[in-house]
Amino acid sequence: VKIVIVGSGAAGATAAQFARKSNREAEIVLLSRETYGEYSKCGMPYALSGVVDSFEKLIEYPPAWFQRMGIEIRPGSSVRGIDAPARSLTVGSPSGDEESLHWNTLILATGARTRIPPIKGATRPDGRPVEGVYTLRTLDDARAIDEALAGPKRCLIVGAGLIGLEVAEAVMARGKNTDALVGVVDIAPHLLPGMIDEDIARVVQKAAAGHCVPFMLCSAVTSIRQDDGIRAELHAVASDDRSEIAADMLIVAAGIAPEVELARAAGCCIGTCGGIVVDGRCGTSVDGIYAAGDCTEYKDFITGRLAAVGLGSVAVRQGRVAGTNAAGGDDSMPRGLLNSRTTRLFGLEVAAVGPTLAQLKQDGIEPIVGKATGSSLPEYFPGGMSITAKVLAHPDDGRILGAQVIGEEGAHLRANAFAAAILNRMTIEEFSKLETCYAPPVAPTFDVITLAAEAARMRWKRGASPAS
Amino acid sequence: VKIVIVGSGAAGATAAQFARKSNREAEIVLLSRETYGEYSKCGMPYALSGVVDSFEKLIEYPPAWFQRMGIEIRPGSSVRGIDAPARSLTVGSPSGDEESLHWNTLILATGARTRIPPIKGATRPDGRPVEGVYTLRTLDDARAIDEALAGPKRCLIVGAGLIGLEVAEAVMARGKNTDALVGVVDIAPHLLPGMIDEDIARVVQKAAAGHCVPFMLCSAVTSIRQDDGIRAELHAVASDDRSEIAADMLIVAAGIAPEVELARAAGCCIGTCGGIVVDGRCGTSVDGIYAAGDCTEYKDFITGRLAAVGLGSVAVRQGRVAGTNAAGGDDSMPRGLLNSRTTRLFGLEVAAVGPTLAQLKQDGIEPIVGKATGSSLPEYFPGGMSITAKVLAHPDDGRILGAQVIGEEGAHLRANAFAAAILNRMTIEEFSKLETCYAPPVAPTFDVITLAAEAARMRWKRGASPAS
Repeated sequence: VKIVIVGSGAAGATAAQFARKSNREAEIVLLSRETYGEYSKCGMPYALSGVVDSFEKLIEYPPAWFQRMGIEIRPGSSVRGIDAPARSLTVGSPSGDEESLHWNTLILATGARTRIPPIKGATRPDGRPVEGVYTLRTLDDARAIDEALAGPKRCLIVGAGLIGLEVAEAVMARGKNTDALVGVVDIAPHLLPGMIDEDIARVVQKAAAGHCVPFMLCSAVTSIRQDDGIRAELHAVASDDRSEIAADMLIVAAGIAPEVELARAAGCCIGTCGGIVVDGRCGTSVDGIYAAGDCTEYKDFITGRLAAVGLGSVAVRQGRVAGTNAAGGDDSMPRGLLNSRTTRLFGLEVAAVGPTLAQLKQDGIEPIVGKATGSSLPEYFPGGMSITAKVLAHPDDGRILGAQVIGEEGAHLRANAFAAAILNRMTIEEFSKLETCYAPPVAPTFDVITLAAEAARMRWKRGASPAS
Repeated sequence: VKIVIVGSGAAGATAAQFARKSNREAEIVLLSRETYGEYSKCGMPYALSGVVDSFEKLIEYPPAWFQRMGIEIRPGSSVRGIDAPARSLTVGSPSGDEESLHWNTLILATGARTRIPPIKGATRPDGRPVEGVYTLRTLDDARAIDEALAGPKRCLIVGAGLIGLEVAEAVMARGKNTDALVGVVDIAPHLLPGMIDEDIARVVQKAAAGHCVPFMLCSAVTSIRQDDGIRAELHAVASDDRSEIAADMLIVAAGIAPEVELARAAGCCIGTCGGIVVDGRCGTSVDGIYAAGDCTEYKDFITGRLAAVGLGSVAVRQGRVAGTNAAGGDDSMPRGLLNSRTTRLFGLEVAAVGPTLAQLKQDGIEPIVGKATGSSLPEYFPGGMSITAKVLAHPDDGRILGAQVIGEEGAHLRANAFAAAILNRMTIEEFSKLETCYAPPVAPTFDVITLAAEAARMRWKRGASPAS
């Protein structure tokens, strides 16, 4: 059996590892465009900030590790063609040679690229960014930004999502000069628009204000021109105002687009989110071809519709399933994506699971909303920290659809409890009565997760019109 | 409608509050033996240690609070008789008067008393402890211990359960002299025997060793005599050795016994654990009489059998249900007790839910065991803390029966996720695939809770004989 894996990111590297675990005999070839082996993309903002003290530390599995596992890793490979019926790939090596590679099963883990929004002057004809414009997708991208930030640079960030804010905090943490960050621009009216609701985002924004982050929301960079650095034209959508910002570099973190050229050439079904459609076994529409990670789309647990996979955690889980199945084993994903997500920004841990309020409304669901803020300890006990939980539930049956948690600590672990609840279709009624742990030095009698569910339940019982 | 509540602990006080919330017209009488109103019993070890800086801070709802809520609280009351068919109580007031009190619904929240094991010379004929012997059940108990500890006293603690260890840590924290704590004695072979398994207890014991706590396990204090302080005879059960320890005071924390005299006189069914049997609506076997808190026993979610309620968190939840129902509302408990429990000892947070391994074995179940230790952050990220999770699952269907978590932080929130899983009869297979939150500054790709489930799943798949 020969298993070929394209891509050595979280999904591809995990697939290789689990293919090996499931099948000690199989020939496993891991094609990697880069030369580092597998590294943590999610960790890159922290190597930029200096919290992680070198880029090398982000490399979790160097090429030698794969070799020790009996996985033939080929760094610097580029896939130039595919003949799916013949189960064969054309692969270019770093030396320029071209080779035909046969597979019994193929795993596509081609990842995604940074999507550059339509900013006049920001890209070359081939789509790559011009000088002074950066994206953060690969370790080489991160190193380029690191070099650019070494001097006293004014940095403008496009995108107030997860990556944009993590990079913004990193830029400020380097803190050579106070005006290192001249702006964080987003077309959305609040921070982290895909991740959390506006009310929770305001808590993050308030914390960021203490760090003097210059947010420019409801705004877009429409064009840039090179003139003693970069002059970026900013369009404030609501007021239709246009202004100009001077910067030395632009970092674009405004979302990703799945890399699916190879899958498309192989005849794999591409979904409405632009990703390779996979089932619970990570199979594509083409027999013998599996896919995993950011290049795929998979069923959302709540909506039942296909959704883009854009989380490292899901990539690893899919990689495991794809690798196991491609090697003749049997593994499968849960019934759908929960999109459990978290980060730490400006001293706050933020976590969420399931759709946001805006996403539910787009789906025509006006959820029951419950929110509670409480201390992590009983009132009389010193050292308690404030934590806020918000829960969204279906107005028909009260089952929990999504949740968001924010506080200095413990947000993601609370979101994990909500994840278990959502997966089991628990209602706010049941969840409000969850027997949580209590002890004065550890936790109050009722955790905010149950209080948020209780607030939603009370609202539901009163038959109040769903909150906006 | 007249609602009479006997006992103003967590259960009784909460019952009064929710009776009032459910029924604005009802006459509510709250009979309290003590004079403080409602205070946190669980917080008392921390007022002893000085972490909470006064005993007054433990009073969450003073008598005036109840009065403001329109609840007639009667501090210093003693109930002297009951005529259940006539729905009437005989109540003694602090001034010595006696009064007959009629009820429409009665809530018994009489709590429990400290069980003093058979130690010759430790108790008076009426069962109360002799001079130099202390228990910790009421605020007055706590104050008495506080006064006794004010001088340089050698303290011997009987019981290495939750309360015993919390008090042991408090005694050491006061730290006037290094030999303030001369011993913590327990008949069990490991710490926290009812709470966690031996392997997890060893982690606590190792942490305690750093604090030089003198444990005397597999041992019992069999008798004491007063002789220039207290001479306690210690019986080491395994070796049958007997020795003597000199101490100035003995603190007995070896479990509790439900206070059910009144319930028994009322004709309420008393269960095998010695508690008042209640259903999910906190009803007793006598019409119109409800009960809540440590005086009750309720169905265990896993075993389906009646189990003693000994947790403040459950007392509050039952109080709410009893109060609401007694006032004509409608509320109920979850299908059974999960016994979610936690504490912080010697720098470690310990949490557990469901039966321990020993308890399952007593029930004839040889569970599948999975255990995992990991860091709270990815390896390359600074500041990660070690955390261990252990899961116990049913060998027939793999459903999770219990879990234990220990680490510097985040143990109880992980136990809460397990609680949601157990309540929904999730299997280790499903739980191992739970989509947990991931971000380098917050959490690793797989949380230890899923890794423990995965370890159990692997063991199960291999069909290995259940672990001991």
